Amino acid sequence: MGFIAKTPEPPYYVVIFSSERTEGDNGYDAMGNKMEELAKEQPGFLGVESVRDVNGNGITVSFWESEEAIRNWKNHALHRIAQQKGRSEWYERYGLRVAKVEREAFFDREEQRSP
Amino acid sequence: MGFIAKTPEPPYYVVIFSSERTEGDNGYDAMGNKMEELAKEQPGFLGVESVRDVNGNGITVSFWESEEAIRNWKNHALHRIAQQKGRSEWYERYGLRVAKVEREAFFDREEQRSP
Repeated sequence: MGFIAKTPEPPYYVVIFSSERTEGDNGYDAMGNKMEELAKEQPGFLGVESVRDVNGNGITVSFWESEEAIRNWKNHALHRIAQQKGRSEWYERYGLRVAKVEREAFFDREEQRSP
Repeated sequence: MGFIAKTPEPPYYVVIFSSERTEGDNGYDAMGNKMEELAKEQPGFLGVESVRDVNGNGITVSFWESEEAIRNWKNHALHRIAQQKGRSEWYERYGLRVAKVEREAFFDREEQRSP
């Protein structure tokens, strides 16, 4: 299933991006989809999970092999344009945290049912 | 504003809980609210951000002073009951990651507008 990323054994890195959207689309959905496709092509990309609720609050977590991979993605020319549009148009507020994943656990109901 | 937690200077710790809900409420909302209130009372709790979309996919990130604070919350008697109900009733799948936050950045449109 699609939502929960299949990340490798830790350690790896995560970027947690929490945001409140402004009113209206203003090209956000198209750019968001483009950025997700582009991120997936970057060296060191491990996965992404993204949720936005009906109030416009969203959390996106993206997983990376190294801090260098995160830095390279941050500095990618097209991503920089998107970041600028984020501040000028799309986000009321955001918080971004970079963290090193030390351990993980997963649960899948279907696997529990298996013999 | 409420959504984005006012976390302190890193380092601190984060628990990223990504989940897919089963159909129906089955007492989930009431227990979720209770657990959030209880988490906020725990030693070392720094903040929480939570989003669930219309498809039932959710991400909750909770912030903690130390790994010990996370361990204590994990082992809290009432929280353990909630975890058990999560596996028996509420979640189709989940992923949980524990990570050490190394840096953070915030943006607030209103502050940008200020003189």
